[in-house]
Amino acid sequence: MNTDVFSLYESNVRRYGRSFPTVFTRALGATIWDEAGKSYIDFLVGSGALNYGHNNPNILAKAIDYLTGGNILLSLDMHTAAKREFIEVFVDTILKPRGLSYKMQFPGPTGTSANEAALSLARKYTGRSSVMAFTNAFHGMSLGSLAVSGSASTRELGGVARHDVIRVPYDGYANGAFDSASYIDYVLGDLGSGIERPAAIILETIQAEGGMNTASARWLREIQRICRNHGIVFIVDDIQAGTGRTGDFFSFEFAKIEPDIVCLSKSLSGSGIPLSVVLIRPDIDVWKPGEHSGTFRGNNLAFVTAGAMCKMWSDIKFTAGVERTAVKLQRCLDDLVAKFPNCIEEKRGRGLMVGLKCRSQAIVNRVHDAAFANGLLIESSGPNRDVIKVLPPITITDDELDRGITILKQAIQE
Amino acid sequence: MNTDVFSLYESNVRRYGRSFPTVFTRALGATIWDEAGKSYIDFLVGSGALNYGHNNPNILAKAIDYLTGGNILLSLDMHTAAKREFIEVFVDTILKPRGLSYKMQFPGPTGTSANEAALSLARKYTGRSSVMAFTNAFHGMSLGSLAVSGSASTRELGGVARHDVIRVPYDGYANGAFDSASYIDYVLGDLGSGIERPAAIILETIQAEGGMNTASARWLREIQRICRNHGIVFIVDDIQAGTGRTGDFFSFEFAKIEPDIVCLSKSLSGSGIPLSVVLIRPDIDVWKPGEHSGTFRGNNLAFVTAGAMCKMWSDIKFTAGVERTAVKLQRCLDDLVAKFPNCIEEKRGRGLMVGLKCRSQAIVNRVHDAAFANGLLIESSGPNRDVIKVLPPITITDDELDRGITILKQAIQE
Amino acid sequence: MNTDVFSLYESNVRRYGRSFPTVFTRALGATIWDEAGKSYIDFLVGSGALNYGHNNPNILAKAIDYLTGGNILLSLDMHTAAKREFIEVFVDTILKPRGLSYKMQFPGPTGTSANEAALSLARKYTGRSSVMAFTNAFHGMSLGSLAVSGSASTRELGGVARHDVIRVPYDGYANGAFDSASYIDYVLGDLGSGIERPAAIILETIQAEGGMNTASARWLREIQRICRNHGIVFIVDDIQAGTGRTGDFFSFEFAKIEPDIVCLSKSLSGSGIPLSVVLIRPDIDVWKPGEHSGTFRGNNLAFVTAGAMCKMWSDIKFTAGVERTAVKLQRCLDDLVAKFPNCIEEKRGRGLMVGLKCRSQAIVNRVHDAAFANGLLIESSGPNRDVIKVLPPITITDDELDRGITILKQAIQE
Amino acid sequence: MNTDVFSLYESNVRRYGRSFPTVFTRALGATIWDEAGKSYIDFLVGSGALNYGHNNPNILAKAIDYLTGGNILLSLDMHTAAKREFIEVFVDTILKPRGLSYKMQFPGPTGTSANEAALSLARKYTGRSSVMAFTNAFHGMSLGSLAVSGSASTRELGGVARHDVIRVPYDGYANGAFDSASYIDYVLGDLGSGIERPAAIILETIQAEGGMNTASARWLREIQRICRNHGIVFIVDDIQAGTGRTGDFFSFEFAKIEPDIVCLSKSLSGSGIPLSVVLIRPDIDVWKPGEHSGTFRGNNLAFVTAGAMCKMWSDIKFTAGVERTAVKLQRCLDDLVAKFPNCIEEKRGRGLMVGLKCRSQAIVNRVHDAAFANGLLIESSGPNRDVIKVLPPITITDDELDRGITILKQAIQE
Repeated sequence: MNTDVFSLYESNVRRYGRSFPTVFTRALGATIWDEAGKSYIDFLVGSGALNYGHNNPNILAKAIDYLTGGNILLSLDMHTAAKREFIEVFVDTILKPRGLSYKMQFPGPTGTSANEAALSLARKYTGRSSVMAFTNAFHGMSLGSLAVSGSASTRELGGVARHDVIRVPYDGYANGAFDSASYIDYVLGDLGSGIERPAAIILETIQAEGGMNTASARWLREIQRICRNHGIVFIVDDIQAGTGRTGDFFSFEFAKIEPDIVCLSKSLSGSGIPLSVVLIRPDIDVWKPGEHSGTFRGNNLAFVTAGAMCKMWSDIKFTAGVERTAVKLQRCLDDLVAKFPNCIEEKRGRGLMVGLKCRSQAIVNRVHDAAFANGLLIESSGPNRDVIKVLPPITITDDELDRGITILKQAIQE
Repeated sequence: MNTDVFSLYESNVRRYGRSFPTVFTRALGATIWDEAGKSYIDFLVGSGALNYGHNNPNILAKAIDYLTGGNILLSLDMHTAAKREFIEVFVDTILKPRGLSYKMQFPGPTGTSANEAALSLARKYTGRSSVMAFTNAFHGMSLGSLAVSGSASTRELGGVARHDVIRVPYDGYANGAFDSASYIDYVLGDLGSGIERPAAIILETIQAEGGMNTASARWLREIQRICRNHGIVFIVDDIQAGTGRTGDFFSFEFAKIEPDIVCLSKSLSGSGIPLSVVLIRPDIDVWKPGEHSGTFRGNNLAFVTAGAMCKMWSDIKFTAGVERTAVKLQRCLDDLVAKFPNCIEEKRGRGLMVGLKCRSQAIVNRVHDAAFANGLLIESSGPNRDVIKVLPPITITDDELDRGITILKQAIQE
Repeated sequence: MNTDVFSLYESNVRRYGRSFPTVFTRALGATIWDEAGKSYIDFLVGSGALNYGHNNPNILAKAIDYLTGGNILLSLDMHTAAKREFIEVFVDTILKPRGLSYKMQFPGPTGTSANEAALSLARKYTGRSSVMAFTNAFHGMSLGSLAVSGSASTRELGGVARHDVIRVPYDGYANGAFDSASYIDYVLGDLGSGIERPAAIILETIQAEGGMNTASARWLREIQRICRNHGIVFIVDDIQAGTGRTGDFFSFEFAKIEPDIVCLSKSLSGSGIPLSVVLIRPDIDVWKPGEHSGTFRGNNLAFVTAGAMCKMWSDIKFTAGVERTAVKLQRCLDDLVAKFPNCIEEKRGRGLMVGLKCRSQAIVNRVHDAAFANGLLIESSGPNRDVIKVLPPITITDDELDRGITILKQAIQE
Repeated sequence: MNTDVFSLYESNVRRYGRSFPTVFTRALGATIWDEAGKSYIDFLVGSGALNYGHNNPNILAKAIDYLTGGNILLSLDMHTAAKREFIEVFVDTILKPRGLSYKMQFPGPTGTSANEAALSLARKYTGRSSVMAFTNAFHGMSLGSLAVSGSASTRELGGVARHDVIRVPYDGYANGAFDSASYIDYVLGDLGSGIERPAAIILETIQAEGGMNTASARWLREIQRICRNHGIVFIVDDIQAGTGRTGDFFSFEFAKIEPDIVCLSKSLSGSGIPLSVVLIRPDIDVWKPGEHSGTFRGNNLAFVTAGAMCKMWSDIKFTAGVERTAVKLQRCLDDLVAKFPNCIEEKRGRGLMVGLKCRSQAIVNRVHDAAFANGLLIESSGPNRDVIKVLPPITITDDELDRGITILKQAIQE
């Protein structure tokens, strides 16, 4: 397999091409093939962008139909039939059944575009400039999102000062030594705390890149209460944890909260085609027409596949299947934790968004390489890269899941 | 045509849906149809993202083949056959014939992702934090790109201070009253100027959103010389002006300059599917693996259509056609300027990237509405929204161009 | 007494002129007289700038001698005999007996000048830009000092974003709910905390303006240890608490720490004439000649009075007297706390730097006004202005102290 | 003469002690003596803080009287008789005769305290955060003042980003190549300029530290007009150029402008004792009581000497003398320029605030050293330190001036 082209012409920044030294071609469901015909189980799924598997037949068929029909692809934010249908489907199958009523904004099609739009809107709405964000957060690579992210290596990146961000400890930070919600509440009420009332609090319910740290329902409700009390916009970045990853469509359903703004992207299109949306509580939607834009905000092919994805959530067989798979996955990982206490410290996460906190980065590296050799793709996360992310498609078959877990177990054993 | 869905559920931020109150469905070349079957000539082409027309048959066929073949769609920055082929084609048909040697970075698939990556890299490479940018610049909606943009309304958006940006006058600013390049050269040499040496100078060779302001070859060469002298990274944001829009593939070819970093997006995929690339002078490519990322940086469907686009540039019939169309378009606009001196102040732009500076915003609004009524889509730009952007596909047929210009003429006459 | 001039021509910003509506003329020791000849005991002493009383005879005599001798007054940082003598005396009577070896920098003569210089030097020395500062801190009114201060009303002032400051809880913050030192230690060790290693940690050992919050010896030692471990410059702003206020010359002596930089001002000249000094661990003194300046850094009259003040610390009778007064003052306040539990929550502070935390701001206001009527000057502090500051001269006579306390007791009784 | 103490115990930052390697003791008028009894003519006068000469007898006598009278020295912003008298004198002898009506704010006693207060007030008054400042400006060493200063070496100091400052070219910048006022006017009117409307424009009418650059009356009036048109607060930092230095009390009188805010310090006390004042157009005085503070804002000894200085301006013999000396000084420097065209490029400045722009920094250094050897103190300024500052007391005697000029001429000759 020829990979010279990449080393010759692609920037040094390339990463996965190094850790998975092969060339991929075809993909279906949880399986992906390289040029040599070798197959791999995919527990990485585009960092959560392929929750419905590669080339999900229900979804792919709609894309092919749309393309062959000579339909409009790019439309900025003009009205199109495809966009109208997606909005209808999203409202009917996702929002209404959950009792939610949000306005939908389509910014640029990336997750970071959605977060940037959400932060801008919160600042405009409140007239305040700073934003409260958490230790080990990750919200994207553009400057506004970088500023609220926690990782030192990521943040160095922008090369400029990170402004207007108030950093506070996440739920359970430092092994639970600090009562994070009480601290936030206290400083916001103390005129001498040196901490201004922020425009927004932005958080992930599970910090995937930050090491699979999981917020409790109680803490999330507490944060929502603090936001309500102090007139702060409550933003959930549900880009990686949302769109089905935790078993529910939104990752925050289990906590019975209703954030003011929700950002979705990654698996939203159901197909890996770029799409994002910002869900906005109607009274916060103070945008003026055209005030926020983006060339690819009218990506109609993605609207079509996203609509197909949404419809799956009306199918009780589908949701029951996801639930069953989640239970099975959790049990598999519990077994691994029990079996390899010398390697694995604990299981983290909820639903199908799980991680294994290992005792060192070196262990994770060896597991990663052994898994790849045996046909399994995984990646790591956390500030010390010592957490194995286990993110199978939520539509994975039992057979594929078994194979993936078996390879993982062998890799740890080695 | 039902548009209630949009007003009920889409954010107030929607803009084109208001100025073009209809619902579009199909599109081919320079023509776009609404649900009622009415056709429109498209002189807006997704703000420059559809230089090759809607659903260009050469390009669309490749997309359909790829989709139906069960090939991998999303791959982060793993190696894929589709990506490898695109890199090869881009190097062989675009870079090598122009004597250019750049490394290619694929950030998130939007223009602003490319600019953010370019600015971050320049800061990392130089160890400096500020960036020099121009009056009336537009570089995108995420915070790093907003900071270097010039428009007041846009900049207000982020709601936070715009840091680390040194604003200087663009070529010909204030009717040419200031020798912009000399000024920049002087302040960078003066220890008391209060202006630090920046990491980068970022510019568009034609400021599309800023009012179709056009930089001269002499000025661009002068800026490049200043960058070389002071060790400043020279970034051309060629997102709207590049990929064929000015008649050449890169908008800066006419000036015989070779920027250190070039950002492309919009028409790069040839199809409207999101894609962007950062072209980097190899010695500046100091990224560490994985230091910059983005979920949709491996958008394989876009690689496929982008490759098909690039190949067209090897066809002498294609390039001759573009050139001929550019000449014709320029002549048509010259005629309009001569005919309507009361409405139009001057023609602006180069190649197929042209604008009509009108005597007021009110004139532009009336022309826009009359054109729409008669089947032509145009948009305006400039700080006072008094410049009509005329951006037909560079592949437009003579017939379509004639029809468009005729409608435009009638609209102005009214 | 004519006060029209003030209301007519002085800015609205004037404050004490309103709360003490009279015109003062003469002063001696702890007593101050107004134009009508009424005397007041001064428990405010220029916010701690008159620790040695008004017109201390030992000190004043030297000033008169110097002035009448035709000696140089202002000298920038040229060598003068007066400056040389002050440096010698300071080294011999203050630093050497305490085993300290610092270099001395004379910035502008205000406390905030000293803090600005200290922060600049720490940034230069470490090459880092952010600084860690505490809830309820107060460090001065110029922008760099404001940025590290905690009070919301103060911080709003600058009107610009407060950058490069990491805010953390002070010792005992929120009634001791957070183990502040452990938190700081943890976030500095966590690559994902989102908190960069700062150039410096700056703190007051007692937060006078912040409400007389008092740091423990254990906590101060812990902060020093963290600074040493992480290569952070440890700055003690001893402007209000230092120069004898707590009974020792430096407020941190009781904790047996040795900060990297110490800032002194306020009572440093012993006379109320402006003077400040930055004490710098020699290896941190990386200033280049002339890199930091200030017109009034060579205030020779202040050098002369400061020298006279320092010499007093060699006199065992003086230090024994201060100690005795501190004990007496503490006992008096303990009595008040015991006597008025309905008004007073607790006593705060150390040595002669004490405060009474009252149950409301209204109580404090009433006490303030009654005290003034009866001939006692006090002020309040704390984010809610509910702490009475009790700052008599450390040289106060028993008689003056008794009178002051008696008036205070009566005022509270009312 | 023993200077070991300085090298052993004073920070490396000391500068004049190095360039004038002696120890000064007494001073009178324009003459200053070192420990060995050698006399020097002082053309440096504390960087403009001793416009009335050292130990001016009129002024010194008042200080001695005040000190010996047991009067209050430090009073925060309480009412005192000394302060009342100074305000009355300042209003009667300085403001009223010039038709000016300002409110007076006493911040900390340094120039930079005044600038910080002025900038804060302008930001508060307008609700805007950025400030426009000029190339080669110098406004002080605290962070807010540093941010608006131009010099690279100075600005590096703070070690943090300089925010909220819009840098524009000063009158005559780059040899007059840019019409600075027109440029400012244009960008403030252009919505796409990327330059926000600032809270204030701050300037010196002569940039002393910046190289004795002198603004024209026409340009100053133009800047005032722009400020009025755009609702921008117009601040003149008259710290070095004011208080008599240019022959008039305020440096801007010749231009017949009336700034919104004027900052004075340096020579304001007439004695070298620290004092500063902010003069505020009454409707801009939106401070709330106590919102801006400073321990040494009530430096009564300085009020007394400042009052004595002000009274001198009522004496026609005094003002005539200053005028005559200014004319003579100008003529002397014209002679030097005519005589030494190989060394001196041009004379700069107005009144008694003059400089000689030399052909290199090396020339200036040699002149400086030769002058010192022969008994004359001068200093240099400008981004390249190639301008000799000639700042004699404005009360210098003919004899002293002749001696100084003679030594200077000899030094240049060498």
